[in-house]
Order: sequence, then structure tokens, then C-alpha cells
Amino acid sequence: MNVPELIAAARGGSVRAAGRLLSLAEGPRRGELLDVLGPGAARVVGVTGPPGAGKSTTVAALVGAYRGQGRRVAVLAVDPSSPYSGGALLGDRIRMSAHAADPGVLIRSLAARGHLGGLAAAVPAAVAVLAALGYDPVIVETVGVGQSEIEVAAVADPVVVVLAPGAGDAVQAAKAGLLEVADVLVVNKADRDGAERTVRDLRAETRAPVLTLVAPKGEGLPRLVEAIAAHARADDPDRRAGRARAQILSLAQSRLRVHPDLAELAAEVAAGRTDAYAAAEELLRRPPGPDG
Amino acid sequence: MNVPELIAAARGGSVRAAGRLLSLAEGPRRGELLDVLGPGAARVVGVTGPPGAGKSTTVAALVGAYRGQGRRVAVLAVDPSSPYSGGALLGDRIRMSAHAADPGVLIRSLAARGHLGGLAAAVPAAVAVLAALGYDPVIVETVGVGQSEIEVAAVADPVVVVLAPGAGDAVQAAKAGLLEVADVLVVNKADRDGAERTVRDLRAETRAPVLTLVAPKGEGLPRLVEAIAAHARADDPDRRAGRARAQILSLAQSRLRVHPDLAELAAEVAAGRTDAYAAAEELLRRPPGPDG
Repeated sequence: MNVPELIAAARGGSVRAAGRLLSLAEGPRRGELLDVLGPGAARVVGVTGPPGAGKSTTVAALVGAYRGQGRRVAVLAVDPSSPYSGGALLGDRIRMSAHAADPGVLIRSLAARGHLGGLAAAVPAAVAVLAALGYDPVIVETVGVGQSEIEVAAVADPVVVVLAPGAGDAVQAAKAGLLEVADVLVVNKADRDGAERTVRDLRAETRAPVLTLVAPKGEGLPRLVEAIAAHARADDPDRRAGRARAQILSLAQSRLRVHPDLAELAAEVAAGRTDAYAAAEELLRRPPGPDG
Repeated sequence: MNVPELIAAARGGSVRAAGRLLSLAEGPRRGELLDVLGPGAARVVGVTGPPGAGKSTTVAALVGAYRGQGRRVAVLAVDPSSPYSGGALLGDRIRMSAHAADPGVLIRSLAARGHLGGLAAAVPAAVAVLAALGYDPVIVETVGVGQSEIEVAAVADPVVVVLAPGAGDAVQAAKAGLLEVADVLVVNKADRDGAERTVRDLRAETRAPVLTLVAPKGEGLPRLVEAIAAHARADDPDRRAGRARAQILSLAQSRLRVHPDLAELAAEVAAGRTDAYAAAEELLRRPPGPDG
């Protein structure tokens, strides 16, 4: 099947066709795929936070809420540390299993390294595919340590940062720059000791709304859904341009990583024949080679 | 004073001249400075790890060990979350105060945002300055969350990752990709419960040497110093090329962030007139503008 046929089949409910399209978004036919899809505005909700904060439970709760509104929902789980290959469900995503049999929910794990341009380069294309297939919203879940919170901020609006009660998570989040990218903060497991204190501490640190949640029970869920909707309503050209800027930079970096002249320039620097600053200028002056 | 005069004064012991040179490394005269210094091979020890693991105490212990060998030592503290401006000592760096009055030790904090090309772009130039002034080794300390561990890996060899006992730190380090960049792992506070278990867990995860340390008492310090020396002795052209590659990519990204056409391309994407992939290609095709 060619791309338009795959899109038609996926829109008709073929999970297999949807999977094929998502695989194309990660491979050398990405350009062809994007040409057919055209530039599309997708609603993307990012969910990030430190390990153990309850991101997957929060995502499962959000999926339930959107399904209750009759919307089709896609979840992209971005986990560079996961041993599962691209396309596999995360093995420990137990709480999502309630939705696994629901044809209105598509769950995809982007986990493999070494794909064309890396993980960062796959996310905007995967989002474009899911939006074209009628999934709204697309929820992008990342582990929220290392590089990934920057990448999710580049595609998602709003970025929801999930933290557990206790000083550790809040301090870690601040140090990791998570508070900077947060549009909505959620203190999950809010029935635990220290939740109120954590909410107070976070409110002193950020102007973003700080909500409480007990994800498995759905306590606080309606307010989170409303905060996400309110943020989307307040979107404006400046914010869209900021996200576009971050996406462009992320994709440009992915392209430079596979630049045909990078190895030669690195060898020159390693041999002491030039310095890294001059080599970086030279890299940017040379064409990056054919896409894909 | 011009650059050669500043270098002469700094080599003669002027702390003020050394500070001026480091400030030049962060500003628009960086190119001129690097031309005078020439490409130099500096020995750089990176120290990173999660907050609270005892990085600063470890760095202070290493400084003491290298001073005991009669070597002049520089410490670059890279902390994007620090409120202190570039050039200031970190306020809480109490344990370094033993070395603050020692003219054989130079401590510099790179903490300000918004410098030319950002923090990442300042580190290789600062290292080049310190190496030219006769500091060996240069210890680069970073907070080890977010982006900084990737940057330290680009300049440092070896990268020493400092963790505290307990499952939390080890799991966090694995998730954050810290184990991947670690050349030497240190379980600090090794007199605490759980240290042996943490060592065992880490040895199952990595092939890098895992050492124990009680930094304030110097227990385990000679073995750490030897592991760092052994790693430096084993350096080879491939490893040097790998570091050069990471530095070039980091610097190229810093240049793209201030590309004169980025805002226009972001607006095009935000308006739906093109997609982020095509815009990234276009960004790479256009000259990045004058350096600085």
C-alpha cells in the first residue's frame, strides 16, 4: 500500500495500517509521508516528571477522561531508557491495559535508539501522523530526566509535569529545569503525607497552576482536564512560534549528528589541527547531505 | 591589556588577569582569544551526579590530592540552576574554602545564562584558557541533571559520576543516561548503609570501574586518583575524536540557536506554511551569520 492508501485504511480503523504509518514516520520515507500529510496543527499534551511520580497512571486517567468525552486518544510513550523496541507496548504499562482493547485508544512506544535522526526527530512526525488519523489529543509521555523534557516541550502544549509529594521531587524538578517547561504542575499521590507542603513549595517557585491528583481514584482529574483545556484555549502565535523554534532546533541537531563531514572534522580537532569552535563553523557551512 | 599580555600576567600569578581571560572566553572576543591560545590538549576530569551525592566534597578531595602532587588545579563549576553570576564562587561551596586562599587552585563558576552561545559554548573555551595557564588537571563539575551531563562528557575524560548509596540514586542515574557517560563510578558516603548493595547493583549495570569513597575523610581517594590517571593513560585517537564530535555538535547547536533566520522560519511553521522538518533543512542551508 502507498501512503494515501495506508492513511485511508488507518482512518477506517486498521490498527496495522496505523502502525505502518508510524513506522514510516521513523524511517527514510518520512519526507514522502509528511508531504502527503501536509503541515497540520495537532493538539499535543505532554506529560513528564521524574521516575516514580506516577506519569503512566496520570496518562491512563487522562485517557479515561477524554474517552468519556467521546474523543479518540493517542499516547506516545517516549522512553530512551526502555529496552523495548519501537512499536512495542511498554511491558510495565499495566495500568494502560484497561485501554489496550479500546479501538479509540492508540498507544505507541518510541523507545529504540539509532532510528533515523534519533528519537527526537521521530516525535513531531509521529504526532503529525496521529493527528491526521483523527486522534485528539495526542498525549506524549516522557521520563522527564535528561534531554527528553526539552523535546516534549518542543511539541507539547501544555506540558504537564507530574511530581510526587516530598521535597526530593520538587528540588530535583527545579534542578532539572522541569519547572521551566511546566505549563501545569500536578502533585500526584496527593493523599500522601507532605502533599500540601509540596504544593506550597511549588507555588512559591512557579507561576504555572499547581494541582493535586490521586490518579488511580480520579480525584482532581476534572480540574486537570480543565487546566489543560484552558491552556490550549490561551494558545497564541508567540507560543506556537516558540514551540516551532524548539522543534526546528531539535531537528537541525538530529541532522547534524549524521552530517557526512562530522567524522572528518572531529578527527581534525582530535589531532589538534583546528579547534572545536572553528570546526562547528565549518560544519554549518557545509551542506548536510540528502535528508534520510 | 591585550590577550598576550593578559596571558603573561596570568601565568605570572595574577588572579585578576586569569579572571579577565575567562570572561573573554565567554564573550564576543572568544575567537581572538582562541586564535592566540591555539588548539591545546587539556586534561579534563568531569565530575557529575545527582544533587546531594557529594560532588563538591569529592571535587574538594581531588583538589587536595592533586595539590599534594604539586600540581596546579582549576575547578570549573557548571551549574545552570545557580543564581550566582559567571565568575562568582558558588555561595555554598563551603568545603572548597580550604583551597580558596591557595594560589595553586583556581575556582570559577560558570552559572549565568544568556552568555554568547550559552553555557555549553563557554566550557571548551574556558578549559582552553585554564590549560594554557598551566592548570592540570581542569576539573569540570556539573549538576548531572538535564543537559549538563552530555556537555561534560563532551569535554571531560574521564567522566566521574558520583552517587550516594541507595537504590534511588542508581536508578535515577541509569534513567538519566548518567551510566552511559560514566568512565568511573563513585559510590560516595560509602560508610552509610546500603553502599555495598549499590556497588553491586551498579557493577551489574556497567563495565566502568565502580569505586567507594568517603570524601571528607579521604577514604578511597588514592584509588579514585589512580582510576582517573589510568583512564587518561588509556586515551586514544578514537576517544579523542568522540569527544571532539560531541563538542562540535554542542557548539553548532549553540550557533543555530542565535541564527538570524530562526525566528522567521519558526513563524512560518507556526502559521502552518511549512513543517518543522523542512524548516530545519532550510536553517542548515543558510549561513549562520558572523560568529559572536
